[in-house]
Amino acid sequence: MEKNTILEIFSQNMKRLRQNARITQEELSFRSGLHKNYISDAERGKRNISLKAIEKLARGLDIDLTEFFLQSN
Amino acid sequence: MEKNTILEIFSQNMKRLRQNARITQEELSFRSGLHKNYISDAERGKRNISLKAIEKLARGLDIDLTEFFLQSN
Repeated sequence: MEKNTILEIFSQNMKRLRQNARITQEELSFRSGLHKNYISDAERGKRNISLKAIEKLARGLDIDLTEFFLQSN
Repeated sequence: MEKNTILEIFSQNMKRLRQNARITQEELSFRSGLHKNYISDAERGKRNISLKAIEKLARGLDIDLTEFFLQSN
């Protein structure tokens, strides 16, 4: 099975974690201070996002940073 | 104790993991395809690096992505 890229890993985890938290992209945008379109792009793996944005998203979702990078083998 | 920023967490882990692998910044630069100055800046927390660069560094160090984001509480 082809190994997922980091963009795929991150975007899939980000969407799952947001849905687990039962919040909308709009709410995450408000909590993280990142634009709604940015959130939407990141969840579709279209953004090569940076460490500081990752930190804002982790704070917005109230999760540990490592959770964005977990892989289901 | 003031919580570390993501740049501090990442840079400290990156340096420790490279030293554990007993390779130089130059060798990591060669393995990852990232410039030596970029590696040096990232290890000093001076670079707000992106997901794709993180992926190259993880491959160069042969480690799991989550290892960059572990925090010693």
